[in-house]
Amino acid sequence: MEGDKKRRRGRASARTTVAKRQTNYCQLRHPFPPQSLISNEAVDRIHKLALKVLSELGLKILLPEARSLFEAAGALVDDDKQMVRIGSDIVEAALESAPKSFRLRASNPLKEQEYAPGSMLFAAGAGCPNATDLKRGRRPGSLLDYQETLKLQQCFDVIHIHGPSVEPQDIAAEFRHYEMMRAQMVLGDKPMFAYARGRAQVSECLEMIALGLNLSDAEMDSDVWCYTVINTNSPRQIDVPMAEGLIDFARAGQLCIVTPFCLAGAMAPVTLAGALVLQHAEALGAIALTQLARSGAPVSYGGFSSNVDMKSGAPAFGTPEHMKLSICTGQLARHVGLPWRSAAGSASNASDMQAAGENHMGLWAATLANATLTVHAAGWLEGGLTFGYEKFINDVEALQTLAELCTSPETDDESLGWEALADVDPGGHFFSTQHTMERYAKAFYEPLVADLSNFGTWTEKGTKSSAERATSIWQTHLDSYQTPQGHDQRAGRLAPYIEARKARGGSRPSS
Amino acid sequence: MEGDKKRRRGRASARTTVAKRQTNYCQLRHPFPPQSLISNEAVDRIHKLALKVLSELGLKILLPEARSLFEAAGALVDDDKQMVRIGSDIVEAALESAPKSFRLRASNPLKEQEYAPGSMLFAAGAGCPNATDLKRGRRPGSLLDYQETLKLQQCFDVIHIHGPSVEPQDIAAEFRHYEMMRAQMVLGDKPMFAYARGRAQVSECLEMIALGLNLSDAEMDSDVWCYTVINTNSPRQIDVPMAEGLIDFARAGQLCIVTPFCLAGAMAPVTLAGALVLQHAEALGAIALTQLARSGAPVSYGGFSSNVDMKSGAPAFGTPEHMKLSICTGQLARHVGLPWRSAAGSASNASDMQAAGENHMGLWAATLANATLTVHAAGWLEGGLTFGYEKFINDVEALQTLAELCTSPETDDESLGWEALADVDPGGHFFSTQHTMERYAKAFYEPLVADLSNFGTWTEKGTKSSAERATSIWQTHLDSYQTPQGHDQRAGRLAPYIEARKARGGSRPSS
Repeated sequence: MEGDKKRRRGRASARTTVAKRQTNYCQLRHPFPPQSLISNEAVDRIHKLALKVLSELGLKILLPEARSLFEAAGALVDDDKQMVRIGSDIVEAALESAPKSFRLRASNPLKEQEYAPGSMLFAAGAGCPNATDLKRGRRPGSLLDYQETLKLQQCFDVIHIHGPSVEPQDIAAEFRHYEMMRAQMVLGDKPMFAYARGRAQVSECLEMIALGLNLSDAEMDSDVWCYTVINTNSPRQIDVPMAEGLIDFARAGQLCIVTPFCLAGAMAPVTLAGALVLQHAEALGAIALTQLARSGAPVSYGGFSSNVDMKSGAPAFGTPEHMKLSICTGQLARHVGLPWRSAAGSASNASDMQAAGENHMGLWAATLANATLTVHAAGWLEGGLTFGYEKFINDVEALQTLAELCTSPETDDESLGWEALADVDPGGHFFSTQHTMERYAKAFYEPLVADLSNFGTWTEKGTKSSAERATSIWQTHLDSYQTPQGHDQRAGRLAPYIEARKARGGSRPSS
Repeated sequence: MEGDKKRRRGRASARTTVAKRQTNYCQLRHPFPPQSLISNEAVDRIHKLALKVLSELGLKILLPEARSLFEAAGALVDDDKQMVRIGSDIVEAALESAPKSFRLRASNPLKEQEYAPGSMLFAAGAGCPNATDLKRGRRPGSLLDYQETLKLQQCFDVIHIHGPSVEPQDIAAEFRHYEMMRAQMVLGDKPMFAYARGRAQVSECLEMIALGLNLSDAEMDSDVWCYTVINTNSPRQIDVPMAEGLIDFARAGQLCIVTPFCLAGAMAPVTLAGALVLQHAEALGAIALTQLARSGAPVSYGGFSSNVDMKSGAPAFGTPEHMKLSICTGQLARHVGLPWRSAAGSASNASDMQAAGENHMGLWAATLANATLTVHAAGWLEGGLTFGYEKFINDVEALQTLAELCTSPETDDESLGWEALADVDPGGHFFSTQHTMERYAKAFYEPLVADLSNFGTWTEKGTKSSAERATSIWQTHLDSYQTPQGHDQRAGRLAPYIEARKARGGSRPSS
């Protein structure tokens, strides 16, 4: 017995060569069932009251074509007041025809995603007019910032789809969409985003995708190659570019992610239930428009509701109210049977404990709510006014941790480890057992930015905070970044188109 | 209609006087059902293998009296090797006699707690030899630090029980327990902690509680007035003071929280399942000892298992492995039907994003696992080597956010807010509606440390990080701290006892 033990230890100390841990966070499914905070009966009451909001109060829709589509479907339209009262039959037909799941295509087939209930997708912080990092400070977003943050999205497979991380303000508004689409196709290979900033830009964005990815009209039409986000102008209003976006993306078979941004106490009722009624009504109204434009068009339910600070009116994120609204929004999404988008985020002005805390709380609410897609999951500071490079890295650590939870512990006999348990004396250690030797290199998640050294070592290394350490991490990743396969062909196909369009003066966004 | 609307707005602008928001986080129940990561069948296999570990491999128990108790119950004891092999009949009888819930008494009846499955209790970071804050830097823990951190625990009702936050190293070991018990009874009024550092100190701690709280022997004996934490010496060993603690606390009817600290890859198998088998075996063995000492004695199942960094051997917290172990430990606790203790915590050396991220992940794992008590929930840095004042404040924000989730959104007609929705034109705002005015002051959680100001305002205020802002918050709370009712009587009763004991030379801890 003793001899046998020694023999095994001898084998163990020979240090079996083990492959380094490989991770794959590309396609994730929620590890926990969706949770609830209100009763199904309350969900049904919110749903019914939202239908009443649509049919009795109506939405103000600024685009005449959208009102005509609703009118043709039987809605009561007042063109003078631009008001549309939408019967529940129209909403119910839309919920019937809207697909319950679809595939987000990408230039790299391995990066494609099922957009379906139960999927767990993350997107980086989006729509930030500014960028910041500890090397260069806070500045208005530039094309370089957009390109760099796209590269960083590309470096981490837990970021599942591209998004408009930073607004490249150094590019004139009429040219900006060219550079944003080019950057996504040349620097990335994941499902893409296009802004709904008016018909001219949207049609050019879709043309660029078909050209860059070398898609036939039929291929473009039959699959989802890009998504846009449609924010309503709460309360109860849809402006011209948003309505155009809903129609044009739907007709092109591309994805509208409908996302009312209902801040309780400001653009929505101060009560969470009231904010949910408004959010739900606006989402259903916008979803209905997509289905009137093209029955069966891909569309995502969505909600990004939170509260405001009642002293300053500033939006809050990661608060209990934000979390409750996310969890209840998940209940409403399940009630209508559609995949849906949530959001994390942070109001913090720095990459500090507040920033981490707010984002973790938002991420956990989205996880409990089984959000299909969580936007602003990494890098969002100042309530979306700034994309933070160091925050992005730290948030990716949180996302990777969540992704790891999608794999349950193994419980086979070898994992239960009877032999290992019998092999180690009371008060001993398992460092050098065969069981450990065979597994140690792949056993645990390897932190991206967390530093586990003791205080002395950490002090010797310069007492760097996790934000400070993140600086060298994003730098290293940008240095070692590799352009995705096929980028040069895509770039080559796009260049002449973009040059020609630029020569003609580009296309201004509508407003 | 329009006139009516104006009239209502007029009323609203008169600003109905509303009471400030009151919170009460004193008694919490988990808002979400417990989650699982492994099958019930796997849980049962872990349980059975743990029983096999106890009966075939056994535990090394260094205290002869403990071995005798096991021997009398039919365990196979080898006194030379100090090994005890414990049959599953002994474990099953212990699980039968251990109470499934009990009340943690306190000097303030409003701060008492039901220690039961479904309860959600938090304790501050515990056992830290050092303290740190941004004003005074990192230093060896002192009595002042212990007193201050007790006051801070007392200031926040989301901290439910007191604990040994900072080790008062400036007090000689033979006097330290006097000062720690006095501080808890004079500065706090919540359920108390006593170290199991040998029979002499334990009996004096219990005497001090009876004296300070003015309890008869019967009152002391029939209720739980304090708790201790028993860490086994993994693997498979229980040392003298731990075994004495299990016996003495049980006999006194006080609470042992059994907590093997199984670091996968170090003192436990590298596989999570193997670590769980070991943790479960040790917990069951220690629980059995309490029941042999006194059948029906209050005891808590517990686990604080995580992984180590396989490069440095340093313990990790808030990692996917820590979280998975917590969630599976919850499954095992439910399997044996006992309330249980988990732990959050952080390996970070600073109050930074890593510190916040690790703690949030640990807290969420404990929440998903429905831990009865989560220790190290606020202020724990460096894997427990340091108590951080600023981290404590930021962690309390996380705890308060979790506590707020225990209240579901109201969904009555008034909350659904039809009138408010009808009252605001499309594109308008809800700031001044009657519905908002009546509710705004109490509608939302008020952040403790989160700063929602915009970047300009935040810059003008000195670009303070959430850690830096936390400094003035703990200072303000210490400044406005009020001693709890009855503190002077408790202090008066304790003083002569402590002086007399000190005059006799105190009591040294055993080891």
